[in-house]
Amino acid sequence: LPGERTKSIHVPHVVVTVGLPARGKTYMARKLARYLNWTGIKTKVFNVGEYRRQATTRYKNHDFFRPDNEEAMAIRIKCALDALEDVRHWLDDGGMVAVFDATNTTKERRRMIFDICTQKLGYKCFFVESICDKPNIVESNILEVKLTSPDYTDCDKETALQDFLQRINHYKACYQTIDEVEEAMLSFIKIFNAGEKVMVHKHEGHLQARIVYYLMNIHITPRTIYLTRHGESEFNQVGKIGGNSRLSERGERYSRALADYIHEQKIDDLRVWTSWMLRTIQTAQHICAPQERWKTLDEINAGTCEEMTYEEIQHKFPVDFAARDQDKLRYRYPRGESYEDLVARLEPVIMELERQENVLVIGHQAVLRCLLAYFLDKPAEELPYLHVPLHTIIKLKPTAYGCEVDYVKVPIDAVDTHRSRPKVPGSLSAHHQGAANGASCC
Amino acid sequence: LPGERTKSIHVPHVVVTVGLPARGKTYMARKLARYLNWTGIKTKVFNVGEYRRQATTRYKNHDFFRPDNEEAMAIRIKCALDALEDVRHWLDDGGMVAVFDATNTTKERRRMIFDICTQKLGYKCFFVESICDKPNIVESNILEVKLTSPDYTDCDKETALQDFLQRINHYKACYQTIDEVEEAMLSFIKIFNAGEKVMVHKHEGHLQARIVYYLMNIHITPRTIYLTRHGESEFNQVGKIGGNSRLSERGERYSRALADYIHEQKIDDLRVWTSWMLRTIQTAQHICAPQERWKTLDEINAGTCEEMTYEEIQHKFPVDFAARDQDKLRYRYPRGESYEDLVARLEPVIMELERQENVLVIGHQAVLRCLLAYFLDKPAEELPYLHVPLHTIIKLKPTAYGCEVDYVKVPIDAVDTHRSRPKVPGSLSAHHQGAANGASCC
Ligand SMILES: Nc1ncnc2c1ncn2[C@@H]1O[C@H](COP(=O)(O)OP(=O)(O)OP(=O)(O)O)[C@@H](O)[C@H]1O
Ligand SMILES: Nc1ncnc2c1ncn2[C@@H]1O[C@H](COP(=O)(O)OP(=O)(O)OP(=O)(O)O)[C@@H](O)[C@H]1O
Ligand SMILES: [Mg+2]
Ligand SMILES: [Mg+2]
Repeated sequence: LPGERTKSIHVPHVVVTVGLPARGKTYMARKLARYLNWTGIKTKVFNVGEYRRQATTRYKNHDFFRPDNEEAMAIRIKCALDALEDVRHWLDDGGMVAVFDATNTTKERRRMIFDICTQKLGYKCFFVESICDKPNIVESNILEVKLTSPDYTDCDKETALQDFLQRINHYKACYQTIDEVEEAMLSFIKIFNAGEKVMVHKHEGHLQARIVYYLMNIHITPRTIYLTRHGESEFNQVGKIGGNSRLSERGERYSRALADYIHEQKIDDLRVWTSWMLRTIQTAQHICAPQERWKTLDEINAGTCEEMTYEEIQHKFPVDFAARDQDKLRYRYPRGESYEDLVARLEPVIMELERQENVLVIGHQAVLRCLLAYFLDKPAEELPYLHVPLHTIIKLKPTAYGCEVDYVKVPIDAVDTHRSRPKVPGSLSAHHQGAANGASCC
Repeated sequence: LPGERTKSIHVPHVVVTVGLPARGKTYMARKLARYLNWTGIKTKVFNVGEYRRQATTRYKNHDFFRPDNEEAMAIRIKCALDALEDVRHWLDDGGMVAVFDATNTTKERRRMIFDICTQKLGYKCFFVESICDKPNIVESNILEVKLTSPDYTDCDKETALQDFLQRINHYKACYQTIDEVEEAMLSFIKIFNAGEKVMVHKHEGHLQARIVYYLMNIHITPRTIYLTRHGESEFNQVGKIGGNSRLSERGERYSRALADYIHEQKIDDLRVWTSWMLRTIQTAQHICAPQERWKTLDEINAGTCEEMTYEEIQHKFPVDFAARDQDKLRYRYPRGESYEDLVARLEPVIMELERQENVLVIGHQAVLRCLLAYFLDKPAEELPYLHVPLHTIIKLKPTAYGCEVDYVKVPIDAVDTHRSRPKVPGSLSAHHQGAANGASCC
């Protein structure tokens, strides 16, 4: 259809990080890439530090980063140019955003990148500077991520910390923050002390607005996100998809076990989110914590296939049924939704989850697949096949560059609603034939 | 249901504008209030200038605003306190956000407001400062809105302009921009030159994040937004709601007439948005301009009532049918959506419309009612009854404090799909009885 893909056609963008070491540049670069990829915007991070480690023999110490170390400086410029060359390949091959992750702490360096990207290559540039003058944040960043860096294998903690602080000092000697007068042509965001203050200059276009909004909403306070599906429902038991049925007796038991588990954890300021469907509201019923209902968390809309079993769908709509197996991500139920639609619908949920601290989300199989794909950085093709079993609590703890995940299985039986990608599109495994074994999955 | 309304329970907020005269404070205050009200957050603007005009006899000239005019200064402080008193009534009576619209150009004044609002009354404060050093923007603002102010009735243009510039100078004499060190306790956004640069300090909570995002996305470049429903569809003709039918022969004719109209207007950089439904895509088919499809623009989902006529719904679901007439805004079709759901779904469309310039949106009756309510600042109760006839182009031109609207009727017959609020809930007028007169409306 004409227009179908116009929304995805942007001018390719290069997002350029700026800031001293241990200011969260790589953290933001990776997180932003994960977010953009999840929304369907192909993004890749190019970390110049990795080029440097490839280009040099083993890292000795901070002397490498002295501003007067000319040999090292030549290597560092070469690495930056090599990375930019790879950025070019990525964007010319269909990538939409490249994140150029390096310190880029001088005007001269930024000018070079800006000129190459905009004038020579015709891309748009957006600079993201992180500024932090709180020594405790910087030190905890170093302890959290730098000591385990390949630069410091076989090096004791204290030596590594001191070396890294020296490295920062070498950068400080020639650091120039982005100057809105002398560098007035740049579009940029400056983030001070992990979000306490933010300044945005000449942002333009939808993509930059999204990036700004995202970076303004994330935070680095440790917290845990709990995801669970509703307890087993009556429809689960008979293998029907969709609908708005109540919990089965086993599902009821899960709702009590879930409440017990959550209360035992004694979670600070926990908030509980459910969809508007009976089965998630029922699942939350015994939990003592403030609750919110989100229409946005409702299960994928299966349109004309709502309340049918897989057998019925296969029988009545064999063509649709097989089409779904061929491209489950993009397949849209007649008058219903696709997984891709679901991701778009869930974007505000992700944004609000980023803003919150401890949250328990009681959702549905397809919905939680989308949320999980975001937190675990799963590629879109895997998203519709992620395992989200019933009666299981998924604990997510954000870490420096990703997310720890833990599956807590609650020992209450439930049907298995997972349907793997079949060998032959449109075929049903024995598991999904007959309502006795019934599986309600999406 | 427990949790249903938790999302709306915020600490009441006072949004406080800051800035010299003619910096768009009232513009932003009103626009923000319109946006928040539309999303269901009860908001009201308190303009201190209006209190001043009430408290004084006719405005003579800028001398009133001299910093050394003690009598006037006493009046001005009294007006501010009176307005704050009304803010308190509003928030205690269930209002959620009050916008305190005044210059508030001194630290002392801001301190007073902050202390009263946060310490005495327990609200949250968010400051919005507009800074503009481009004389051409300021002058065009004065010409656009100040010369028609009640202060300058019976006063020629040049005299009024000069007086207003003098007034600004009196304010400049004691203007103190928000100082992030001395006023470090304040949460604020500073907007420079109508959005060229933005600085945000200590914003917290969902509401402030939304306000910041909104203010970063609006612009003051003149433009026109065109709204139209799809051409008459086959379902319109037989009075069925929902579905995904094609255009009728008259609908086809409308699609050509619409293209002719749009081409004649020679609109700069026009973008055309449609839903994913056949009837809007078909309606756009002859228009030469970049097109985008939005799933988000699809018609309200009538759930189990999809593809039925009103008579059928009344017959099969008499209770639902009457319930809808009693609270059409909140009534949610079984397994479908309410108008309130639709507003939530359309929020990203509004945000993107704010960012864009000339756009033609080809949508559906319920969807366009929501968009129109936003632009025309209609109260939520009127929203589900707004007239959005078929074969009509609605032209919206944003003005200083609102929106000009123009209905262009294209002379091609179509059924009338509007159903007014009936005297007796659940009853059908003759107009909607029988498919011949068929009306597909939501
Ligand atoms: N805006 C921020 N300001 C300060 N610290 C942050 C910010 N965002 C994330 N962090 C913290 O930064 C740490 C990760 O540091 P990261 O490796 O990203 O630094 P870097 O700037 O890439 O350093 P380097 O220049 O050595 O590559 C994490 O512990 C994270 O909590
Ligand atoms: N952020 C902005 N900066 C500068 N001008 C703006 C901004 N936003 C809107 N405007 C323009 O400001 C004009 C409206 O001015 P407005 O009456 O809101 O000024 P004001 O600051 O309330 O002045 P006063 O103090 O006299 O009440 C409109 O023409 C609008 O285009
Ligand atoms: Mg890094
Ligand atoms: Mg005003």
